[in-house]
Amino acid sequence: MNVVFHVDETRKWPLTLHNARNLLDALGDEPGAIEIVANAEAVNGYMANQGGSNLLEPMRALSRAGVVFAACQNALRAYTIGADALPDFVMVVPAGVLELAKRQQQGYAYIKP
Amino acid sequence: MNVVFHVDETRKWPLTLHNARNLLDALGDEPGAIEIVANAEAVNGYMANQGGSNLLEPMRALSRAGVVFAACQNALRAYTIGADALPDFVMVVPAGVLELAKRQQQGYAYIKP
Amino acid sequence: MNVVFHVDETRKWPLTLHNARNLLDALGDEPGAIEIVANAEAVNGYMANQGGSNLLEPMRALSRAGVVFAACQNALRAYTIGADALPDFVMVVPAGVLELAKRQQQGYAYIKP
Repeated sequence: MNVVFHVDETRKWPLTLHNARNLLDALGDEPGAIEIVANAEAVNGYMANQGGSNLLEPMRALSRAGVVFAACQNALRAYTIGADALPDFVMVVPAGVLELAKRQQQGYAYIKP
Repeated sequence: MNVVFHVDETRKWPLTLHNARNLLDALGDEPGAIEIVANAEAVNGYMANQGGSNLLEPMRALSRAGVVFAACQNALRAYTIGADALPDFVMVVPAGVLELAKRQQQGYAYIKP
Repeated sequence: MNVVFHVDETRKWPLTLHNARNLLDALGDEPGAIEIVANAEAVNGYMANQGGSNLLEPMRALSRAGVVFAACQNALRAYTIGADALPDFVMVVPAGVLELAKRQQQGYAYIKP
């Protein structure tokens, strides 16, 4: 049971993280990969500490539990965010939409919170 | 042709019901299962009568036509909605996101209105 | 690698076109079909010239690059848009949701910007 979450609006980050946590808990010992792909303005969610919000703590906790976090390189460029400014648990992918398509081709379910 | 609709914003309920109706009509005699999974704040849509809105009538009509309605248990807990307060045609699932993933694994198409 | 994009809010058109462009660029020479299905209010995006916006130019450029544009007949009827008022590159489908389900059944990945 593999799932890729798609987030492209910054306001949807809290719900997305909540969804991922619920999925982790629901899966329990069942094997399953969970990946969250951020593109468009949502890549700014990875810079959350600068805005005073607290997205990074739950992100890091999910990352430690095995959730993969990806950021779209096109979006990072558009928002002039350098890869070195991202939290260390974030994987940069060339294009978020290609990542989303590839994962579905690999059998991942797609969920857009 | 099986389809699972995902609704997690209360404001998207009318469009979701409209989409389901259009899909039913378009399928005609072609066999197909349609399920609507509500999680996050959208579970409040099942309590629509309290808000004076009229979602329940089209929901019930769709249910009679075979559409399955599901509510996420995590969300019900978060909004302190008891399962016994839900309309009788609503099925409670442990986690909306797990239900969405399972259905896709079973070959359902996913649509997020 | 085939992808169907779903747009049902007019405000999401620019992001959707941007996503499609990024996917085209990321695919490069790799074969892949890209289709954009507009339903609900988003069919008005095809009438963009009347609103003074400039969606039609990037749409036409994407169409020339092979991207397929579809409009839901149910939505056109709801917004009293005649098929002859649409740009020539737009394909009318009986129901947007059925088109989205069919494409996924054919192996297309689904992306909702």
